[in-house]
Amino acid sequence: MQFSDRLVEKITQTSNIVVGIDPNFDLMPKAILPASGDSQAVTNALVNFAKLAIDTAYNLIPAVKFQSAYFEQFGSAGIKALAQSIEYARNQKLLVILDAKRGDIGSTSLAYAQAYLEGKTKLTNGLTIESDLEVDCITINPFLGDDSLEPFVETAIKCNKGLFILVKTSNPGSHMIQDRVVNGKTISYYLAELVNQLGKDSIGKSGYSSIGAVVGATFPEQAKQLREIMPNAIFLVPGVGSQGGKIENTFINFNPDGQGAIVPISRGITYFSNLDMSLEEYQLSMRKKVEYFVEITKKSSN
Amino acid sequence: MQFSDRLVEKITQTSNIVVGIDPNFDLMPKAILPASGDSQAVTNALVNFAKLAIDTAYNLIPAVKFQSAYFEQFGSAGIKALAQSIEYARNQKLLVILDAKRGDIGSTSLAYAQAYLEGKTKLTNGLTIESDLEVDCITINPFLGDDSLEPFVETAIKCNKGLFILVKTSNPGSHMIQDRVVNGKTISYYLAELVNQLGKDSIGKSGYSSIGAVVGATFPEQAKQLREIMPNAIFLVPGVGSQGGKIENTFINFNPDGQGAIVPISRGITYFSNLDMSLEEYQLSMRKKVEYFVEITKKSSN
Repeated sequence: MQFSDRLVEKITQTSNIVVGIDPNFDLMPKAILPASGDSQAVTNALVNFAKLAIDTAYNLIPAVKFQSAYFEQFGSAGIKALAQSIEYARNQKLLVILDAKRGDIGSTSLAYAQAYLEGKTKLTNGLTIESDLEVDCITINPFLGDDSLEPFVETAIKCNKGLFILVKTSNPGSHMIQDRVVNGKTISYYLAELVNQLGKDSIGKSGYSSIGAVVGATFPEQAKQLREIMPNAIFLVPGVGSQGGKIENTFINFNPDGQGAIVPISRGITYFSNLDMSLEEYQLSMRKKVEYFVEITKKSSN
Repeated sequence: MQFSDRLVEKITQTSNIVVGIDPNFDLMPKAILPASGDSQAVTNALVNFAKLAIDTAYNLIPAVKFQSAYFEQFGSAGIKALAQSIEYARNQKLLVILDAKRGDIGSTSLAYAQAYLEGKTKLTNGLTIESDLEVDCITINPFLGDDSLEPFVETAIKCNKGLFILVKTSNPGSHMIQDRVVNGKTISYYLAELVNQLGKDSIGKSGYSSIGAVVGATFPEQAKQLREIMPNAIFLVPGVGSQGGKIENTFINFNPDGQGAIVPISRGITYFSNLDMSLEEYQLSMRKKVEYFVEITKKSSN
């Protein structure tokens, strides 16, 4: 089944909330922290954090989103943890989004697509080499242009995987390039037209394409226009919580059927001011946060 | 010593040519290939390829450039190989450029900067966690705007490291966003002004700043204008060889003193049609290619 249909099915069974897993040791309960900087201790602490979040939320959400940077931060020990955390999430039947914002010239984009979407590389001599970083979809940066996107789109379609292409990001600086106006249209507007075009041959039974868009929750006015340009794209809507976006602002990204968008929340679900709580208290606190956000988005689609 | 001065010193001692290490098993001599898809075999083959290229060229070049994608392609086995290859290059006194094209919202960009430029994360509880992916400089994608660049610039200055910010990439699709004209200036033009601005407080004794720019070899007309806007930036000039750029086209990126630009060449140095050669023949072939490119650029600066 193609990615968009799998995601819509999972959303229907659960909610539109995605738990973002952005490990930051300064914000986690002390009970999870590594006892030393030893690479195995660091890997284990990162995986334990991911497992706690996944175990807490898996039956309320369609997917988890891993922010690659917060694993890369710890070098190969972090990447090892990312691989193990991806495996754990997939075993819990969650879809896995890797927020990696990759993008490069064509042949290099293909290498990224093989790493994360195809999950393997077949050599001409017949040997197949697996990647342990295979996920269901990744975020893509379109700055290098259409030829940099092609290998991602082709691999996604071929492997029943998905993409979320950056169209309008949630940060204040997104105005610098994305809001520039050329012939009466912003760069984001042109990108939205491109995303709509790239996705039009892969619209599934759900009515949605597997080529989605990142549209920040912090600019609801623009989101409304972008929704009109991309009626068949699933939106990944970051920026709720610590970035100042309100969950209510994300509703404009949804289609009237309550579908068409997922809302990743990272710090707003996984971090609390009390760092002394036990792991049981921590899981309870996270669960309440997930339930809170799920409840609000469900009300909006009624 | 700050990054720009270290790089200029190394260029003076060697050349402006940088060997790009983009492992592609389909293009390597059979003698290097892994015997199986086993992760240790894959790691070893990748590291052996990097070592061969480094041993061949280290006394003719100031730096090597690793393309992150071609290591990520093989998951955590690839990242382990990247860490070992970085260590090997640094032990050979080469500067190490990681072509990663990262860029994200501020807090996430900081995590990338800690991974690759600072090489460690200090927790508030006093624990320090090392990253084995520390390099001398990285390439950065500016699509998310100025606030996404700040943590990279601050960390680079603090740690005597460098950045190459994408201004005009070498691929045909770079026209899509980078050539859009707003108020008479292209997006690349605005980015060049920003790079010049970001670097003006970190100009070293060499006359160059540690905040550099990526300007492709495939658009020499634009390079000329961008050179004027960024007189103190070091240019990383990709696109020579398999991408169709001629080495002669890169000369426009240099300042009259023969400084101010480095030219990474990957496939043009490390790959040959004969895949049956011995490792000795392979090293000899690579050495000749490096010498050839070094010779041409030296002539140009006379």
